[in-house]
Amino acid sequence: MARLQLKEGQAMLVSRAHQEENSQIKIKGCVIGGEQIVVVAGPCAVENEEIMKETAFKVRGSGAHMLRAGAYKPRTSPYSFQGLGEQGLKILARVGEEMNMPVVTEIMDAEDIPAVSEYADILQVGARNMQNFSLLKKLGKINKPVVLKRGMSATIEEWLMAAEYILAGGNNQLILCERGIRSAEPWTRNTLDLAAVGMVKELSHLPVLVDPSHATGVRSLVAPMARAAVAAGADGIMVEVHPHPEKALSDGDQSLTPKGFSQLMREIEPLARAMGRRLR
Amino acid sequence: MARLQLKEGQAMLVSRAHQEENSQIKIKGCVIGGEQIVVVAGPCAVENEEIMKETAFKVRGSGAHMLRAGAYKPRTSPYSFQGLGEQGLKILARVGEEMNMPVVTEIMDAEDIPAVSEYADILQVGARNMQNFSLLKKLGKINKPVVLKRGMSATIEEWLMAAEYILAGGNNQLILCERGIRSAEPWTRNTLDLAAVGMVKELSHLPVLVDPSHATGVRSLVAPMARAAVAAGADGIMVEVHPHPEKALSDGDQSLTPKGFSQLMREIEPLARAMGRRLR
Amino acid sequence: MARLQLKEGQAMLVSRAHQEENSQIKIKGCVIGGEQIVVVAGPCAVENEEIMKETAFKVRGSGAHMLRAGAYKPRTSPYSFQGLGEQGLKILARVGEEMNMPVVTEIMDAEDIPAVSEYADILQVGARNMQNFSLLKKLGKINKPVVLKRGMSATIEEWLMAAEYILAGGNNQLILCERGIRSAEPWTRNTLDLAAVGMVKELSHLPVLVDPSHATGVRSLVAPMARAAVAAGADGIMVEVHPHPEKALSDGDQSLTPKGFSQLMREIEPLARAMGRRLR
Amino acid sequence: MARLQLKEGQAMLVSRAHQEENSQIKIKGCVIGGEQIVVVAGPCAVENEEIMKETAFKVRGSGAHMLRAGAYKPRTSPYSFQGLGEQGLKILARVGEEMNMPVVTEIMDAEDIPAVSEYADILQVGARNMQNFSLLKKLGKINKPVVLKRGMSATIEEWLMAAEYILAGGNNQLILCERGIRSAEPWTRNTLDLAAVGMVKELSHLPVLVDPSHATGVRSLVAPMARAAVAAGADGIMVEVHPHPEKALSDGDQSLTPKGFSQLMREIEPLARAMGRRLR
Repeated sequence: MARLQLKEGQAMLVSRAHQEENSQIKIKGCVIGGEQIVVVAGPCAVENEEIMKETAFKVRGSGAHMLRAGAYKPRTSPYSFQGLGEQGLKILARVGEEMNMPVVTEIMDAEDIPAVSEYADILQVGARNMQNFSLLKKLGKINKPVVLKRGMSATIEEWLMAAEYILAGGNNQLILCERGIRSAEPWTRNTLDLAAVGMVKELSHLPVLVDPSHATGVRSLVAPMARAAVAAGADGIMVEVHPHPEKALSDGDQSLTPKGFSQLMREIEPLARAMGRRLR
Repeated sequence: MARLQLKEGQAMLVSRAHQEENSQIKIKGCVIGGEQIVVVAGPCAVENEEIMKETAFKVRGSGAHMLRAGAYKPRTSPYSFQGLGEQGLKILARVGEEMNMPVVTEIMDAEDIPAVSEYADILQVGARNMQNFSLLKKLGKINKPVVLKRGMSATIEEWLMAAEYILAGGNNQLILCERGIRSAEPWTRNTLDLAAVGMVKELSHLPVLVDPSHATGVRSLVAPMARAAVAAGADGIMVEVHPHPEKALSDGDQSLTPKGFSQLMREIEPLARAMGRRLR
Repeated sequence: MARLQLKEGQAMLVSRAHQEENSQIKIKGCVIGGEQIVVVAGPCAVENEEIMKETAFKVRGSGAHMLRAGAYKPRTSPYSFQGLGEQGLKILARVGEEMNMPVVTEIMDAEDIPAVSEYADILQVGARNMQNFSLLKKLGKINKPVVLKRGMSATIEEWLMAAEYILAGGNNQLILCERGIRSAEPWTRNTLDLAAVGMVKELSHLPVLVDPSHATGVRSLVAPMARAAVAAGADGIMVEVHPHPEKALSDGDQSLTPKGFSQLMREIEPLARAMGRRLR
Repeated sequence: MARLQLKEGQAMLVSRAHQEENSQIKIKGCVIGGEQIVVVAGPCAVENEEIMKETAFKVRGSGAHMLRAGAYKPRTSPYSFQGLGEQGLKILARVGEEMNMPVVTEIMDAEDIPAVSEYADILQVGARNMQNFSLLKKLGKINKPVVLKRGMSATIEEWLMAAEYILAGGNNQLILCERGIRSAEPWTRNTLDLAAVGMVKELSHLPVLVDPSHATGVRSLVAPMARAAVAAGADGIMVEVHPHPEKALSDGDQSLTPKGFSQLMREIEPLARAMGRRLR
């Protein structure tokens, strides 16, 4: 039986056999899955309003389209900074509105769906929750775009099946995001799997973003991997930017400075054009 | 800094530096983490009362101490059998009571904590939810034993940190369960990591079970890996048994028949004794 | 201590601390590691003179710079086609000369170094021999360019240390080639690790090629990954092309047709320019 | 088609379908693959005659059957101690003879086959050379027992196919050795895959050893994993022992002291008996 078939002659919702043309997810003025390479940028976590504003101002100035930051943080240790919660959501929403940028933030608990939906434009399911099927089922019932990150060691099939949980619930505003998989390589945090991007674009109509920050965990590799993502056919990138990475409460090692981000945007632009797409 | 230290001189709750003697979790007549090798057996899912009873009757006859079966099933595909839900919980509870065996079942959604706590003696967190930190935090607040399975590709440190979330919430009735990690080996479902058992027994006071059924996905490997688990120092095993594996709604390939389970018990007994422990 | 340091203040030969500027390997008219993106194309194995000629003629017509094909084939099974040996070398050399293209071929046994050196312009060490240190030491003593493929599951450090074996022997005509690492993903043959390319270009002066054919094992992914490689900063690509992939004695599933290769070249050209490099 | 079949009805030499009863490899007084659990012990490398003798004397006293030590060392870095070469072989042979213990040592280069065959009783192919097919073919032509270690990330099938290369050459004195595979777990050197032992014992007639020292890289895990190996059905173990691990030129962290080895032997004995086997 062909991939992504439910049974002979019945294709899964996620598959190109079910929908041939690319899905386009419209969020305020932005379209993910269209001609434009969409850039989502921001700090790992909402730390306070000042840093959030400074980051937003600068990444917008360099051409970022959307803002990202976590209010609920999935941290390995219970003693690490867990995020500002609803207070963080409010800061993010205010800054997004002020800067006229849609905002993306992580949802970790189904209980928080109402609050996160109120403040955010896109709800993100993190790698650790990719197979939290209870959460996926509930996200299938809302009328908000969702970004589904690939799990730590998920196969492409498992990732697409997780997406199918959301589509099957009735929510087709779905965006995938490749963020690296576990490997034995110790010099990078994860191994960015760009072939998965190529494979998903072939098998599915859903838009695919790439997160080169979590995928590598190494600041100097973010730009090369962002460029490679565009060349591989990704529809956009999600990048961590912090005005003072050395003081960041989390993920400082992989965060670009605003200046580094500006340089990244200049590097991506000609590649987007070479791919027949546009950055602005 | 030493492993599992929060800061210099302050050990994490999960560590042997915090508690030197082994934790013992008492469930009705059973003790996990004591001298006895505890055997938890049962089908992958509660399918109906008849199969549940037949399995329970037979595994108890061969010496199993506890009963396992899923009412909520974390399935890769949304179109696969998702479990009987609360009806499954009720069947499991009835059969457990009738057979006088404590029952273990998976919790997938924090919303179901009250129902699962009512019907089950131990709540299991599956591999896919090992870093569902919202769920872990809530399980830290209940007064029921929890089995925390190792995540698909979790490191030992991440597994113990996930355990720390539950202990930090105040629930110290915690049992770990190694169930294999992802690897590139296609002939087994996962790669059973018994060195993790040795490492965890060294670093932590928590009891550790091993699930050779999910770890291998191959019926003929369940007994050798159960034996190896006992020899590695595990406190017990969780094994899938189904009276008619060829008709099982899930995991048939790795389920033992009651006869195979009986043989497994005969093989484990002398090894338990050789380890200075007992099976009965 | 910093990476690739032998001891404090003494950098390894492979490192940028030892040699700041990029190494350029000159082979007949070609330069690997310069401005040009170098494309090496050809069938998996030398099968016969006719197919070799047909492939060479067509890939040269589309702009390939060098020819690749194996005369000694490292096959998993002893019963699979093992290559034509010296007869294959002769065919490859004749076709290379006729087409005026330098040729690359694999060396599997130190005994064959004289023969392979006589007929080939570049000797390739395959993934399975990356840590065949006896072979590496002997290749350190010859005056011929060597391509060192990354091992199946080698870390970046192990790969660079393997390169150091060759440089330490006195042969500095060395080219690295990323060809994917093992992962649990079943839909691709290996997982192409482009972050390794970025990391190696940062830490080392050696040129780096990418082999998207072995890395993915999937024909439709070869072009996207070749594009991504160029965008990540690779100095060239090695691609399998066969005039009749369905009849190839090995690796047919991942071989491009000459038409597919021609399309690939058209896709790469604007990306090379966007990277400030050139294809021709 | 069934596993390890060459074609319908024709089983590979390595398979149980080809030979139902266990292969037994006889080396001087020892039999590998029989009732006895065979223990091979010794330092990572031959460092000098004194240490070799001291180690041999002590491990023999605790019941080891064979002696292991490397004269040719496959080291990641070209600047690490590469072994004493032929001088090391001579020391090893002298000590083995004096102590009346067969000796095992690694062969890295086909050129050294005559010398290694002269001095050693068993030639070991290391993990890094498991798919050095030229070496395997030559070892298929000698009349000496060979130990074939599993490659770093080799699948079970690739390992058995590598064994087939040796059997197909005519040498059926072949012993397999599981030594762990690469994983993302940073607290152990490799991940010991005991399910592979169970699988190989089922599919093949060849004897299987386990090397818990390289598999874990952690001294305190050697004994638990040696015990688990015996319980999983392995025919013996290979263990690193050094009289002064803190001064060892290589692998000190994973070497047992003679006292630790003696304790390990006491732990294994009752497990061997529980498995219906014997240690002495």
